[in-house]
Amino acid sequence: MSFRYPNGTLYHSVPNLKKKQTPKKSGFGKRGMSFEEEINQSNEYYLARGLAVIHKKPTPVQIVKVDYPQRSMAKITEAYFKTASTTDYNGVYQGKYIDFEAKETKNKTSFPFKNFHAHQITHMEQVLAQNGFCFVLLSFSSLSRIFLYPAEYLIHRYRKQEERKSIKLVDIENEGIEIIPAISPRIPYLQAIDEYFKNHEK
Amino acid sequence: MSFRYPNGTLYHSVPNLKKKQTPKKSGFGKRGMSFEEEINQSNEYYLARGLAVIHKKPTPVQIVKVDYPQRSMAKITEAYFKTASTTDYNGVYQGKYIDFEAKETKNKTSFPFKNFHAHQITHMEQVLAQNGFCFVLLSFSSLSRIFLYPAEYLIHRYRKQEERKSIKLVDIENEGIEIIPAISPRIPYLQAIDEYFKNHEK
Repeated sequence: MSFRYPNGTLYHSVPNLKKKQTPKKSGFGKRGMSFEEEINQSNEYYLARGLAVIHKKPTPVQIVKVDYPQRSMAKITEAYFKTASTTDYNGVYQGKYIDFEAKETKNKTSFPFKNFHAHQITHMEQVLAQNGFCFVLLSFSSLSRIFLYPAEYLIHRYRKQEERKSIKLVDIENEGIEIIPAISPRIPYLQAIDEYFKNHEK
Repeated sequence: MSFRYPNGTLYHSVPNLKKKQTPKKSGFGKRGMSFEEEINQSNEYYLARGLAVIHKKPTPVQIVKVDYPQRSMAKITEAYFKTASTTDYNGVYQGKYIDFEAKETKNKTSFPFKNFHAHQITHMEQVLAQNGFCFVLLSFSSLSRIFLYPAEYLIHRYRKQEERKSIKLVDIENEGIEIIPAISPRIPYLQAIDEYFKNHEK
């Protein structure tokens, strides 16, 4: 069973539900995990080793009705998905505030802006203004390629949407940092963060 | 209507529900807002002025069943509250990772440890190990006094619980920073953070 937000995007975070997964070509390190599950596994890996403290935020839900079928047991019987006002992941890595969103596309040559909400872009601007490190993890699932794409480039291109409705893969290759999936962690994005700071050190 | 987690603590984040609020003596700047609402108002104040980007995390909910009474409208019909694995608030302030939990007591002379979960203490240790700034906002509601109490002191005292089951107010006065409630923001905790860093600068 797959859930959708009112805007039609898939809701992914229901770990104990059977998900109807469309079979897909498994790339290296994939083995049936969704992109989100791979990121969560990577976060757990980093947390367990004391390398970073980065968590996915819970899915925002508007609770309307709660029953108490038993004493001290609350059962939510009416609730609705809300649109998140921030990105999905944040935390701390070596004193640095880290904030990111993960998005996937089946496109092979560009990443469509329709994957991003205006309020997420606003949130990224706010984080950059506070000198946090903000980025998106972009997965080209048909190509089995993943990139860390810094928020400053995303924002700049998003704000010029009248020119084009997507970011060309070649621009992501030039401005982002490719992440090669591995076994543990599946998506070694801290390496990409290190590389970013190496290149952007003053 | 008030909801409770399985452990009996009150669930506060349902803005569009009428909450049965026990009437309480209103201190300065209180005016019927709950402690959580006051913090949220402060976060919004800071966000709107570009001073900090700090959000409350959504309440974690385990979704079991979703119906589609109408096309493109998902209605959650069975879900349960989950225990949070981290603290409730985090974000970025002038490049610094900020992480905190807010707790309230009616006690007048000490703050009981039963307000904290072991996993939250663990999370605070993980944050400190990554050089994030972590603290608790402690509200003595009967005294109308609020403190920023740094996580390093909380963890130290929590780990010695066999000695005593609470933190004495006098220790919180000595080790924490008192926050005087105001109108906007209600709880000016950024000032307390500034003071902490002024005192702890190397």
